[in-house]
Formats: sequence, structure tokens, C-alpha cells
Amino acid sequence: MKEADIIDALKLSVEQSQTEVLLPIGDDGSVIKLGSNKQIVTVTDAITVDVHYPSGIESHAIGYRCLAVNLSDMAAMGAIPTWASLVFSVPKIDSNWIKGFIKGFSEIANQYKISLIGGDTIRGPEFFAVSLQGYSKNEKYVRRTGAKAGDLIYVSGYLGSAAYGLELIKNSNRCESNNFIDAFLYPKPRVKEGIILAKYASSMIDISDGFYQDLQRITKRQDIGFDIDVSLLPIEPNLKKILGYEKAINLAMNGGDDYELCFTMPKEKEKQFLKEIKSSNLSHFSCIGEIIEKDNNIRDNGSKFIFERNLFEQF
Amino acid sequence: MKEADIIDALKLSVEQSQTEVLLPIGDDGSVIKLGSNKQIVTVTDAITVDVHYPSGIESHAIGYRCLAVNLSDMAAMGAIPTWASLVFSVPKIDSNWIKGFIKGFSEIANQYKISLIGGDTIRGPEFFAVSLQGYSKNEKYVRRTGAKAGDLIYVSGYLGSAAYGLELIKNSNRCESNNFIDAFLYPKPRVKEGIILAKYASSMIDISDGFYQDLQRITKRQDIGFDIDVSLLPIEPNLKKILGYEKAINLAMNGGDDYELCFTMPKEKEKQFLKEIKSSNLSHFSCIGEIIEKDNNIRDNGSKFIFERNLFEQF
Repeated sequence: MKEADIIDALKLSVEQSQTEVLLPIGDDGSVIKLGSNKQIVTVTDAITVDVHYPSGIESHAIGYRCLAVNLSDMAAMGAIPTWASLVFSVPKIDSNWIKGFIKGFSEIANQYKISLIGGDTIRGPEFFAVSLQGYSKNEKYVRRTGAKAGDLIYVSGYLGSAAYGLELIKNSNRCESNNFIDAFLYPKPRVKEGIILAKYASSMIDISDGFYQDLQRITKRQDIGFDIDVSLLPIEPNLKKILGYEKAINLAMNGGDDYELCFTMPKEKEKQFLKEIKSSNLSHFSCIGEIIEKDNNIRDNGSKFIFERNLFEQF
Repeated sequence: MKEADIIDALKLSVEQSQTEVLLPIGDDGSVIKLGSNKQIVTVTDAITVDVHYPSGIESHAIGYRCLAVNLSDMAAMGAIPTWASLVFSVPKIDSNWIKGFIKGFSEIANQYKISLIGGDTIRGPEFFAVSLQGYSKNEKYVRRTGAKAGDLIYVSGYLGSAAYGLELIKNSNRCESNNFIDAFLYPKPRVKEGIILAKYASSMIDISDGFYQDLQRITKRQDIGFDIDVSLLPIEPNLKKILGYEKAINLAMNGGDDYELCFTMPKEKEKQFLKEIKSSNLSHFSCIGEIIEKDNNIRDNGSKFIFERNLFEQF
């Protein structure tokens, strides 16, 4: 029994009684139709110590993270986040720790104008769950499915930096303050980018479990394939310098916690997309390949690239 | 730092950026105004082993419970539940255990026609969080505040049975199958009752931390008091027989996990209320006192009643 099996069993057992549900469980978020022109998007993500972050990191980063990962899901829907509920569970009362958490949480909440509408506080395991809601603009939201053969494959930001930052933290190698540790501790949800992409993307997902695995979540359900060139993967130049080309590529393919967007776009929309983002202060985007009819083709410039698989599975 | 301090600190730190929030954090649920006549109610409650239920109980009851406690919050808002998100976290994969959980969750979800719209699955501590949404009928929802001196105080169902059931479970005294254990394992959220009460109640709360404490959540914030007669508290006759009068009263006052409704009602509405519930198949209701200008008066028939306080605090 894996994560997908549990979700499938829940889907089969709970009847879809409510007709307003446009997009049910199984994507980055769900969509509910309210009235004639309101679409509410809901995403839910939880984090817990030693699974989603190592013990001992600052509570400010944990408070930030539990909302950031939900904002990233909302970004992948191309929707505008608005209200959040927080389940806050800690094993003991450490006022400073809690204040740090609240500071981290509220800073990112205020940055994105999220109202906190409710939640629960528990003395229990270190565990934080957020349910975040928002709405789609002009009734446009983006699903994981929808890509077609010929669509371009794009990613935002850099891949692999967060995974390397996590390694540094785990090895207690934090003295050298650097971008990698920040990339892990303070992932930047691509909310603004997602909202713009709602106009262009044929499918979208946020990269949390590793690019290679998350890209397949776009293709597998539709029985299509991809053709990508790993030399085009966006990797911090420093990371390539430190790890060497091959290791850096593998980390970009497999490493988790990027919280970047992976999306597909019909070729005819690319020109307008590039024009729109040129004048904005957004993340950079990299086109790394395209969707094909079937099979997956992973190249390194001209030659075939064999990489070590190292998938992250919850179960 | 107590539960209320954490909630207050969060309220102070996170700006209320969204104008659609009619009722923010701090009640059983929050209310969001959407369009001219849609009000969305959101409640969020989590449960974890050894805090909200003892280890070793059947997973069917845990799956049931995590939705039931949220339905109870929704009932206290007088709202109609519709969509839920579930965060499902377990330390190991035991297929039978998970199937039992899903059976319990889906049975109550289907009974109340709740669509499961999303969530998260995690290999972590045994922890289940639900965010449940619904809407208020005719834009009427009930807050914790709103009671006025002279209003009658009512409760639904029986008090103390669940707390006694929990004692039996903890003492591994489960051989005798009885109502008390069921009252703890399968609390009946008073959803139908709550929807009707939206027309009558001036304030309402669901009793989860003990009647005495939850009643004060209705009165304290408004600086009013209550006058109650403990001889009128609804207690299973069997419980009085087993524990004796005084112990049973104390359990009804302090015991947690009742998931009954406590509400106040203007006297002039009582006649119509009693008429409406007479013909229905709802819980029984007991009037146990009334709201007064100030101070709390706890009587036992004519004489003053002194009881042992034993409040449940998360922190």
C-alpha cells in the first residue's frame, strides 16, 4: 500500500455527493464551483519533523514552510490564495520557539495577503497542517493533466539547490551561510508566476518530490511521454562547480523540496508568454524539452543520459 | 502560554487582508462571504493518539472520529457540511488498519454527504487533521457570542457518558459492550439539530472539553454569567446508578468528548422551537438554566452545588 493506494481507496469509499466539485481529490488542489462565476481552489499540505525537515532547524523556517508548501500547491493550480487554516501541534510549550514559528508563518502570510481563518492547537507530535483556499481568475485553473504531444516542458527557478542545502544542514555544515541552505529553508512559492501561467500552461505541478518524479505525474496518467535534455536543466552554476556536472544533474532530477513549477505549454503560446514575463520581476524559466506521444527520452545534448533513480515515496 | 495565547498571538501577527472574512479565527468555525448570498463556513480539527483517543482502539473508530469532531464544530455553527480535506499520517503501513480507518471515515462521510476534496498522506506520527467546509442556510450561522441575560441554556443528548466510556476503555474494561464506550468511540455530531437551531439559538458551542468549560466560552467573552441547576443536567440513568448522583454530576460537568451542543435561546423563541423538534427524529434537548447579568450560579435544586473542577486544557 503506497500513498496513491490510500488516496485511491479513499476516493472509492467516499461518494462524490456534492455536485459543485469540479476537480476532486488527486491533483495539487481541488476546485469547487460556487455560483455562476466563482471557483474556489483548496490545497492541503502538512509537514512534520524528520520527514519534511530535519529536527533542530529554526522554528521561523518551520512556520514559513508550512504555509509556503501550500502556496506552492496553489501556484501549481494557477490560482490566487486567500484564506488559510492552521493545525498547530507541538510536544511542549517553548514560548520562544512558538514566537519564532508565528513570526515565520505570519511573515509569509502577510506577504501573500493570506487571512488566517481558523485551525486547531494541540499538545502532541511536532506536526503542522495547513488547508489553504483561493480562487481562480476568470475561471481558469491548471490541472496536472492536459499536456499534449508537442507541448513544451518548462520549469521555473533552479533545481537541486534545496536538496543540496538539506544535505548541508544534515551534515551540520551550516557555518557557510549560502544560497543552498536558504533554498531549502525558505522555498519561494511561485504564486505570481502560477497566476500568469494559468493563461498559458496546458498542465502544471509543483516540484516537491523531485523533478523526474513530478514530471511523470504530468505524463503517466495521460499515457504520454517526454523528451528532455538534462543539459538544459536550470542548475545554480555554483552547484555544478561543487558537485561536478553529473552529480549536479542527478540532484536536479531527483532531489526534493525545490517547490518550483513544472509545466507544459503549447508551442504557439510560447512567444506571448516570453513577452509577458520579460517585463516582469518573476522567476526565470527554462524550456528543457517537450511532450512526446509515448516513452521517455532523456538526453544530454546529443547522447542518451543514464541517471541514478532515487525516488521519494511517502510510503 | 496556553492555547488561547497561541491563537491570540497568531491573530495579532497575521493581518486580516481579506475583506470577505465575516467571522475570523476564534469561534467553532469561520465564515466567508462569497458573492451576495453565499456564506462558506470552515472548521478545522485534528486528532492524535494519546491526546484525543487512547492507543489501541479500532481504526474504524479513529477514521469516524476525525470527521465526526469536525461535523460537531459545523453543527455548532448551525451550518450544512459539504466538503472535507483529510491529512492522514501514520507511522507504518498496516493495510487492515488503514482499511478500517477508511471504512470508518467513509461511512460517516457518506452518511452526511460529505465530498472528500483533497488532503495529504504522510508517513509520520499517528495524526489526522480535517478541514471541513459547508454553508449557512439563509445566511444564518450561530456564533459563540450572542447570548443575552434572560436567554435559556439548553444542551442536547446526554453529558458524561463519553467520559465514562473513555475510563472504561482505559481500564481495559471493554468486555461489557455498552452505551458508554459507544458514546466515546462514536460520538453523534448534531448536524441536523444545529441546522434547525440556526433559527433559534442566540449562541452555540459544541461540548468537547467538558460542559462547564465550554459553557464559559459562551459567557466569559461577553462578560455575562449563568444560573444552572445541575439536577437538570441530562445524564444517562444508568450512569447515575453506577457512579452515584454526585460523581455522575461531576462527570457531566467536567468530562470531555460529549460532542453535544450547548446553546442559548431567547425565551420567546422556546415555544416554536419545542413545537418544531417535537415532530422530528432528533436528539432530546434539556433546558438546564439561564443566562444572567453576571457571576455564575450553580445550584442543585434549591441548594448551592460545589463541584470539583477538572478542566481540560490543551496546554
